[in-house]
Amino acid sequence: MSNVEQAISELKAHFGERLSTAEAVREHHGRDMSRQPVRLPDAVVFAESEEDVQRVVATCYTHSVPVTPFAAGSSMEGHTIPLKAGISLDLSRMNRIIAVNAEDGDVVVEAGVTRKQLNAYVRDTGLFFPIDPGADATLGGMASTRASGTTAVRYGTMRENVLALRVVTPTGKIITTGRRVKKSSTGYDLTKLFVGAEGTLGVITEVTVRLHPIPEVIASAICTFETMRGAVEAVVATIQSGIPVARIEFLDEVAIDAANAHSKLGLKRAPTLFLEFHGSQRWVEEQSETAAAIAQEYGGSGFEWSTRPEERDRIWQARHESIFANQTLRPGCKTYTTDCCVPISRLADAVMAAREDADASSLTAKIIGHVGDGNFHVGYLIKPEIPEELAEAERLAHRLYERTIAMGGTFSGEHGIGISKLDYLRKEHGDAVDVMNAIKAALDPAGIMNPGKLGQVA
Amino acid sequence: MSNVEQAISELKAHFGERLSTAEAVREHHGRDMSRQPVRLPDAVVFAESEEDVQRVVATCYTHSVPVTPFAAGSSMEGHTIPLKAGISLDLSRMNRIIAVNAEDGDVVVEAGVTRKQLNAYVRDTGLFFPIDPGADATLGGMASTRASGTTAVRYGTMRENVLALRVVTPTGKIITTGRRVKKSSTGYDLTKLFVGAEGTLGVITEVTVRLHPIPEVIASAICTFETMRGAVEAVVATIQSGIPVARIEFLDEVAIDAANAHSKLGLKRAPTLFLEFHGSQRWVEEQSETAAAIAQEYGGSGFEWSTRPEERDRIWQARHESIFANQTLRPGCKTYTTDCCVPISRLADAVMAAREDADASSLTAKIIGHVGDGNFHVGYLIKPEIPEELAEAERLAHRLYERTIAMGGTFSGEHGIGISKLDYLRKEHGDAVDVMNAIKAALDPAGIMNPGKLGQVA
Repeated sequence: MSNVEQAISELKAHFGERLSTAEAVREHHGRDMSRQPVRLPDAVVFAESEEDVQRVVATCYTHSVPVTPFAAGSSMEGHTIPLKAGISLDLSRMNRIIAVNAEDGDVVVEAGVTRKQLNAYVRDTGLFFPIDPGADATLGGMASTRASGTTAVRYGTMRENVLALRVVTPTGKIITTGRRVKKSSTGYDLTKLFVGAEGTLGVITEVTVRLHPIPEVIASAICTFETMRGAVEAVVATIQSGIPVARIEFLDEVAIDAANAHSKLGLKRAPTLFLEFHGSQRWVEEQSETAAAIAQEYGGSGFEWSTRPEERDRIWQARHESIFANQTLRPGCKTYTTDCCVPISRLADAVMAAREDADASSLTAKIIGHVGDGNFHVGYLIKPEIPEELAEAERLAHRLYERTIAMGGTFSGEHGIGISKLDYLRKEHGDAVDVMNAIKAALDPAGIMNPGKLGQVA
Repeated sequence: MSNVEQAISELKAHFGERLSTAEAVREHHGRDMSRQPVRLPDAVVFAESEEDVQRVVATCYTHSVPVTPFAAGSSMEGHTIPLKAGISLDLSRMNRIIAVNAEDGDVVVEAGVTRKQLNAYVRDTGLFFPIDPGADATLGGMASTRASGTTAVRYGTMRENVLALRVVTPTGKIITTGRRVKKSSTGYDLTKLFVGAEGTLGVITEVTVRLHPIPEVIASAICTFETMRGAVEAVVATIQSGIPVARIEFLDEVAIDAANAHSKLGLKRAPTLFLEFHGSQRWVEEQSETAAAIAQEYGGSGFEWSTRPEERDRIWQARHESIFANQTLRPGCKTYTTDCCVPISRLADAVMAAREDADASSLTAKIIGHVGDGNFHVGYLIKPEIPEELAEAERLAHRLYERTIAMGGTFSGEHGIGISKLDYLRKEHGDAVDVMNAIKAALDPAGIMNPGKLGQVA
């Protein structure tokens, strides 16, 4: 028997029906929301407890068999695709909410709890979990990719909101990183090391995250601009003014077309900002007035305000669905999504250059962004089965990432690295990649955790 | 020649007068603000550039000679004391401000720049660096101890405010961690790993930190309470209400005595809160009104407001000097300072238990705290040359830390670990300490960086 057969045999004896080698199950665990080719694991194990996770990892460690964590499968970059086969470790059944500490403003959950599930559960406490990457991702997955989304400008990313973790290490030990305290200066910050480690340093089984008070008032606004540069410069000025805007999203004309076609929003075809403010009535009014005055300076107009939840939900739903909405512009196409983030002083130049690149290309492209953080996504609409289109999208994405890095930016603001972006790691981080590799080798001596990805970069 | 003699000889040839073996210089580098015994380095090198640092570390790596970074010497826990002798690497001359990026709200400085120097330099930009540990520490030192202070409740600690670092690794390589972007999901978070590593994983040579807009209005207030529990519970309620208070400091009666004696404040002898609010005129008024209403519910009274800078400065200066102020209560005594942090829901119990312990002891003790974070300091006034007093302070501190850890807290909120607190690391972090040790061994194979401290814990 090969190593992997031996491991599967031992695991099967324990997990029974919770270990599957069925084609359909393996297929489901061999793909995600990225454009990466499907790669099947040898088997899938459905963990229901930390002990289950420990057993899987320890067995795989003994036999040097790869383990790739999986849950919602909503990765945009192939994180959960088991590049070297082995075991896909499904954590989606680990969806218990362990403790809500309303007084402290935190909650402890198993890694398979999704953000929508969490928010439904804690609603009565007057608190909420603001991080919103669009997909109904799991907390474990969001921690592993250092996810964020539309509200990061106000509430931070998973980096700022994860207080503590429980992790099964690559040698099968269980550790706790951090405590439910606002601050601590005791020891290396292992919590932050595992946040963003993309499952390459161990398996997160439990996540403690901050909750935030549900704002007394939430006001949303839509504002259109004469020019793209005007819209982006209004964002930069708003951020520099120190207004704690809760969301500030940019959509270009193509993105507005898509939203109108898909979600029947009836928006004017123009560079547009969606904004949101959180706080008390008086405070929201003050923020809104200041932001509106800034927008006007940069050619913004038609400020439409709403504090009605259903109106707000309609706008943000349209924004979240924008990745699907594009397909209504060109039936049968897919979005080749990118993700980059620059210092805010470079944002206008970065967005304009991306637009010019796309305009000079044969592809249709739309630009949306969590621009308050300097983060934006250019989506190229392609039919991936047409090699020329895929090649052109790759060429444009490559130019985008090279330019981003040259501007002092980062080639992934929130999607992580996964598979295809690994080539940029050394361009951005230089010799620090050697330090990353040394950490990986020290913590995962058998190289079994999500191999072929972060931590093993030439 | 021994290893260390060989290393000193090679370094002397290059650094000349900038390497000193003079007794007085070594003595200065063998102590800090802690109660740890003096331990002299074999030599002190004054670095003036990153290349200097690299040369020192590379030479020490070659000869397996310890290197302990030093700058302001304001550590409270012995971080800069060269336990294993070797080279004390003084970075205080690396005090250039490299780039102020006002549009992006960040600044790049050499590690030896102090926080007061930085704030004086950037004042005209309308931005400031809010982290305020009391001492005029260097940015490199503050990063290395994950420092914070009175404003962390609003602006976070060094963990939240360091965007990027340049580091000379223990094998003499120069790396850059992170970029000047608000968020990134590319690779292991090395920035956060070096923040709080206490100089055991490399030497920080350059720090990029966030700046924040200078508030339009700053309002300070003093409020006294009938009981200690009332004061602490008012803090908890204020934090839970979501008011973004900029500072909220607790002082017990003994601390008030000390402040009155030393700084002539003329404060009422009662459990007291010092508060500060930052924002626009309207917003500060709203925050203040809400906070005052909460304080009243818990027996707070005599709310004295001030927006005059000189009045504010007098209050905060008195707060910062409290460590010296205690000595006016009992001439010749020193403060045995402690530092712990608990979840806010446990704060009242934690502070009351510390007070009861102290009251049952023969020692005079005062309690102050950055209570908005659940962080407080009990200071025992002792004459260290009296063994019984030192032993009693140690007994009380031990009880404090054990109780803190049992409450889910951390045995150091902001002072770091240094020397004497290492014993608590495994009590708080359990087997995660093995992961810390593995990282240390991987990055510092020769074990030369600040040996005998974090990263080498049994």
